[in-house]
Amino acid sequence: MNRQVHPDTRADGTYARDQRYLATRITADGRDGYHVEPGRYRLVAARACPWANRAIIVRRLLGLEPVLSMGLCGPVHDERSWTFDLDPDGLDPVLRIPRLRDAYLARDPAYERDITVPAIVDVPTGAVVTNDFRQMTLDLSTEWTAHHRPGAPDLCPHEHRDEIDELNEVVFREVNNGVYRAGRASTQRAYEGAFRVLFDRLDALSDRLARQRFLLGGTITEADVRLFTTLVRFDAVYHDHFKVNRSTLTAMPVLWAYARDLFQTPGFGDTVDLEQAKAHYYRTQPELNPSGIVPVGPADPGWTTPHHREQLGGRPFGDGTPPGPPPPSTEALSAR
Amino acid sequence: MNRQVHPDTRADGTYARDQRYLATRITADGRDGYHVEPGRYRLVAARACPWANRAIIVRRLLGLEPVLSMGLCGPVHDERSWTFDLDPDGLDPVLRIPRLRDAYLARDPAYERDITVPAIVDVPTGAVVTNDFRQMTLDLSTEWTAHHRPGAPDLCPHEHRDEIDELNEVVFREVNNGVYRAGRASTQRAYEGAFRVLFDRLDALSDRLARQRFLLGGTITEADVRLFTTLVRFDAVYHDHFKVNRSTLTAMPVLWAYARDLFQTPGFGDTVDLEQAKAHYYRTQPELNPSGIVPVGPADPGWTTPHHREQLGGRPFGDGTPPGPPPPSTEALSAR
Repeated sequence: MNRQVHPDTRADGTYARDQRYLATRITADGRDGYHVEPGRYRLVAARACPWANRAIIVRRLLGLEPVLSMGLCGPVHDERSWTFDLDPDGLDPVLRIPRLRDAYLARDPAYERDITVPAIVDVPTGAVVTNDFRQMTLDLSTEWTAHHRPGAPDLCPHEHRDEIDELNEVVFREVNNGVYRAGRASTQRAYEGAFRVLFDRLDALSDRLARQRFLLGGTITEADVRLFTTLVRFDAVYHDHFKVNRSTLTAMPVLWAYARDLFQTPGFGDTVDLEQAKAHYYRTQPELNPSGIVPVGPADPGWTTPHHREQLGGRPFGDGTPPGPPPPSTEALSAR
Repeated sequence: MNRQVHPDTRADGTYARDQRYLATRITADGRDGYHVEPGRYRLVAARACPWANRAIIVRRLLGLEPVLSMGLCGPVHDERSWTFDLDPDGLDPVLRIPRLRDAYLARDPAYERDITVPAIVDVPTGAVVTNDFRQMTLDLSTEWTAHHRPGAPDLCPHEHRDEIDELNEVVFREVNNGVYRAGRASTQRAYEGAFRVLFDRLDALSDRLARQRFLLGGTITEADVRLFTTLVRFDAVYHDHFKVNRSTLTAMPVLWAYARDLFQTPGFGDTVDLEQAKAHYYRTQPELNPSGIVPVGPADPGWTTPHHREQLGGRPFGDGTPPGPPPPSTEALSAR
């Protein structure tokens, strides 16, 4: 547990995330062998994880809770796997396994890559179908349409699809993964390069968001979901732990108001647990925090204070409506 | 270099600074064998270090530069000693030694405790007289009076001496050393205890300073010097590195204005080098930062912006005057 450097950090000091995922898709036409089907699949997520947070938010926004159940892993996985340690008996109540790894091994007994969340598991076989978080939320939006709630927003509107894809790519590289590229760099040079790219991009996004309420205009899209999950963790985790400390989120007025606007939107803030996020990063990354001590702060900087972004106009849900409150369920076990 | 825990951290997880110093005093009457004498002694300091920063400030405020020369060590000492690596040939120009340790060994060939700054060296013998930073600045104020510049402030006014001593004790325990007690705790419990004590004290100091310009009233004293050297490093180092992150200094309005007021006072801000401070903590404490990477941030939050504390009244130097600008000298080699 005392690695000095993350295994995906290269000899030149730069961090290169292993992006080989189980890319099988669950689609309306079942072309990869997995049809969209109510009750058949289980989303396994963790509130700690920004990649899983995307899927939790999109599932909420689209109202997929009744057809796609969700299991939640605790923030502090063991060396080999995320675990269901938040569940009373340490077993996921549907899959009846203690470790998410078991579902990966059900898919491939020789599976050797990282055990990651989010993953979608085929409940009948207990096997992971996909852990490709990049495609997963897009498919929830475009392949599961028959099961969306009435009033679900269109998070990937056709007329903006190319722009969304393009923005997602840049935001992934420079922001979502950019904070990791800074934090997991093993040389000063690699770190400073990632730091500069990150803040240049945040400044550019801030300029864009000074003029319009959301990234694609007046309505929330997938691009906002992806930026949000990094911003919401910024001051609580990345600023200190990954040394991306040019400024706090709260010191970037446009981005801070934008993040608050989303946080206060049903489906966003109600999925977030910053205590779990802090526990995850500070306790499972001894190469950055050998003591495993989790910071007490930061104090809530005012996530629910007025953001005044409505002055920019826009309709967050377009022709749709916000989702209702999160359903009371075993999911609540991990809420704080 | 990969210690997991600081050597002064105890089995119960709490940090207990080794406070055994060479306590020989340099006095007007020479009762410990060392008389105050112009040109005889050399203060060895480092801009990185908060304890040394006290002595650098007090020497400036009192105008002792012509009678007490100063050598400056670089921020990144080796495992055994602070070194004179900022000097062109790696030797202190007066003492002609590469490592401060050499002056400690000249005092005691069997010296085994930490090699610390500030230290005052007797130039003729090359031996450290004292490294007791607690007494050192008080003696500069009260024993070196014959050599103070005209207009030097009285940093330890007799009528406030008890209150200053009392405040210094609390501020040392809960703030100056308090940040170390948080950062060097090895258990969550010890860390959280130190964290709470620190911020409770900062809140109390903030209340006090909301009503008066300086800690003892309208005029700067030794107590302000001691609080300043921790506050000025707070956001650049302690907030992230020592996990004292309930809030940044800049988010504590009274303390932030107070710190800016002092920073802008001749003799305070002109002694500070936050790049050296960051390099010191992040590169010499692998138990907290195994990578040795030094954060780029934070950006200058506005140390020279108006603080409006003059509205509280007061005369910073009392009946005295501010010191002139720092003398151009070899000391400037380490300035940025």
